[in-house]
Amino acid sequence: MNLQSPIIIVNFKTYLESTGKRSLELAKQAEKAAKQTGACIVVVPQATDIAKVAQAVEIPVFAQHTDPIKPGNSTGHILIEALKEAGAVGSLINHSERQLRLIDIEATIALCREQNFTSCVCANNPRVSAAVAALNPDITSMEPPELIGTGISVSKAKPEIITDTAKLVKQINPEMTLLCGAGITTAEDVALALKLGTQGVLVASGIVKAKDPYGVLVGFAEAANSVKSA
Amino acid sequence: MNLQSPIIIVNFKTYLESTGKRSLELAKQAEKAAKQTGACIVVVPQATDIAKVAQAVEIPVFAQHTDPIKPGNSTGHILIEALKEAGAVGSLINHSERQLRLIDIEATIALCREQNFTSCVCANNPRVSAAVAALNPDITSMEPPELIGTGISVSKAKPEIITDTAKLVKQINPEMTLLCGAGITTAEDVALALKLGTQGVLVASGIVKAKDPYGVLVGFAEAANSVKSA
Amino acid sequence: MNLQSPIIIVNFKTYLESTGKRSLELAKQAEKAAKQTGACIVVVPQATDIAKVAQAVEIPVFAQHTDPIKPGNSTGHILIEALKEAGAVGSLINHSERQLRLIDIEATIALCREQNFTSCVCANNPRVSAAVAALNPDITSMEPPELIGTGISVSKAKPEIITDTAKLVKQINPEMTLLCGAGITTAEDVALALKLGTQGVLVASGIVKAKDPYGVLVGFAEAANSVKSA
Amino acid sequence: MNLQSPIIIVNFKTYLESTGKRSLELAKQAEKAAKQTGACIVVVPQATDIAKVAQAVEIPVFAQHTDPIKPGNSTGHILIEALKEAGAVGSLINHSERQLRLIDIEATIALCREQNFTSCVCANNPRVSAAVAALNPDITSMEPPELIGTGISVSKAKPEIITDTAKLVKQINPEMTLLCGAGITTAEDVALALKLGTQGVLVASGIVKAKDPYGVLVGFAEAANSVKSA
Repeated sequence: MNLQSPIIIVNFKTYLESTGKRSLELAKQAEKAAKQTGACIVVVPQATDIAKVAQAVEIPVFAQHTDPIKPGNSTGHILIEALKEAGAVGSLINHSERQLRLIDIEATIALCREQNFTSCVCANNPRVSAAVAALNPDITSMEPPELIGTGISVSKAKPEIITDTAKLVKQINPEMTLLCGAGITTAEDVALALKLGTQGVLVASGIVKAKDPYGVLVGFAEAANSVKSA
Repeated sequence: MNLQSPIIIVNFKTYLESTGKRSLELAKQAEKAAKQTGACIVVVPQATDIAKVAQAVEIPVFAQHTDPIKPGNSTGHILIEALKEAGAVGSLINHSERQLRLIDIEATIALCREQNFTSCVCANNPRVSAAVAALNPDITSMEPPELIGTGISVSKAKPEIITDTAKLVKQINPEMTLLCGAGITTAEDVALALKLGTQGVLVASGIVKAKDPYGVLVGFAEAANSVKSA
Repeated sequence: MNLQSPIIIVNFKTYLESTGKRSLELAKQAEKAAKQTGACIVVVPQATDIAKVAQAVEIPVFAQHTDPIKPGNSTGHILIEALKEAGAVGSLINHSERQLRLIDIEATIALCREQNFTSCVCANNPRVSAAVAALNPDITSMEPPELIGTGISVSKAKPEIITDTAKLVKQINPEMTLLCGAGITTAEDVALALKLGTQGVLVASGIVKAKDPYGVLVGFAEAANSVKSA
Repeated sequence: MNLQSPIIIVNFKTYLESTGKRSLELAKQAEKAAKQTGACIVVVPQATDIAKVAQAVEIPVFAQHTDPIKPGNSTGHILIEALKEAGAVGSLINHSERQLRLIDIEATIALCREQNFTSCVCANNPRVSAAVAALNPDITSMEPPELIGTGISVSKAKPEIITDTAKLVKQINPEMTLLCGAGITTAEDVALALKLGTQGVLVASGIVKAKDPYGVLVGFAEAANSVKSA
């Protein structure tokens, strides 16, 4: 799946505010914001909620994690075939809260490619982002873990690590779609992230915990659009 | 949830034969066999399939794995709250294909108890089963990994490790519900497992790969019932 | 190896104060305290320091970790054969800073037994201690991780979890040698630990960071001796 | 430490033939071969044997594994400070028998650099080698795990994956020192590995299990020298 910039990926994590029935409400607000703004907004619910969400909305649905497993003896894991049948079109991989061994990241990306399933691999700093870019996933997303969930945005607090990441990643893989995340809560944070060289953002609590997720997402998308068209 | 012996837990693993739509067909055959025989048959689909299966059948649905996480920052994991809202009533824990650290097994059991969610913890030999019993889950299931998926049943090939397990487990926890698994494919294997001191079996390929899962399950359940009433 | 109560195990961890040459100095002070008091004091340096320490002192030397590996293809691990040839007589297993899967703890204990190598398995709470006791190592050591390195001793701050642990462990394994640890810095902490039902303590920073490790260890050992003979 | 091509790294793994006293004998034969041929031969014993080996030979000694830990609370791990004081000058990292998460590989390389400790990071295929090269260790070593220990050499059986690796790695990091390994047992295997674009080899059983390790190493080194000077 080819996602068009600007991309806003909303990670539902395991917040109660985005679990079960509430994952559906949130996904619908994201869909409304996507329709309103034309931005590519992706929702990422827990695996148990994927089928329900994917049935209810037309925006892309990702899984939060994928293992490099083949059909058969992998109790406790989930096949890409199962994720796809549930309606997911891609997955986060190696999120800082679910980290993988290097060889498993590579094997998972290869499996996603075979299955035409979008791979978005997370990295914690510029150097690790470069290594991820060398593995050639569809999307690389850089999030400094020390800022995740803080409300202190990476784009304001550490702009240089976004520009460093963009530089290292593009050297290795000039076409790579690059996102950043961690602490992003305002439209200004999003605009800045795009100006610094990304094609979008990966957000979680900034949307999930917002009183008006639709409104915040519209603000994010418009800010991103205005940078893109500038 | 208090499950009544004989218990037959059908682990769907990640077989394509039990993924997506096909998980639903298999669950319905299991339900039919349960109604026919009165046995407690539990189905264990991948997480993406739980909601659909749980909505369609009245027999208990378990998850294949549960992590000891709390709501919030646990991307790539699944809350017990989410499993429950999807319709699961319990979970396998520490299956040989998804093994956990000792302290995580204990923490997961504690969380299941808090949430009134049935915990079925797997062990690979009698001694490990004793340790599991000391952690006091709802169910302990012993499966020697070298026999899993072989069609050589633990109850015929290694009856002594079932009796050893039963002895060690009951010393520590006299009320523990004990299952066994690995290689179980015939009604005779099931009958033997119960005669050796278990309250049921954990099966996978023997049912998932069967041409007539309903028929095989009825055979299993009747064999188990006949031992129980003997 | 049969260790006599009271047992004081000094975990050198990876403090610079107990690395390399300094591991040797610390081990010699521990030996002096052992000779002075008759207590069983065990030193636990990093693997690189075992040979040097074991050659220099006559008190027991343990490894900080052992994997359940067999000779051959286990790059990056260490054989019990290698630990023994270096002079170690036992090992900590499953320390909270190096935790293992349940089945690996059991396999490691079995391997230690085969090799006549003392196994001291750590646990984080009473229930996990009971599971460890069911695995039948030579020693079970309970350390609540939230108190490790705090200087707030488990025996003063949480006496009830020591008595709970002793009760659960002795029910399952009446002969089990039980230690406790976490935050132990004074002779009084040690005396209390023994009074609450343990046969000794597992300490680290309380000794490694002490200005006079010999003096502190003599104090610990005398306190333990006085409880034992009371 | 700047190692000169051709480089032959001899991984002692956990073979009994290269444990304890026997690690010393093997290291001495490697040293003799190094002196005889001028090749850079590195020996990689288990951590318990490093001090003894490093004291006895003048060739470089590596550790088999290094964790990204800082001094303090890392029981069961080993500080680079401890490895260095024992006499090691570098380490294998991410060997297929001791694999790490991506972020830990990056953190370990960074720590090695800070400590002036040579990092040799292993990879299982060309793509993973590219990712490793992007992390900028001192040495990248590619070993297809399916050939490790088989005696079927990667250079003969799969020359194309060596040339692919060399190409991908040099694109990202033109100065990277590249080794390959798996199944290398003859001088011809070594010569071929260098002709295909590597600066040396990583070997284990081919030397450790040889009747005359000195003779085999001399053969390896001379074959490598002849390619280098061609």
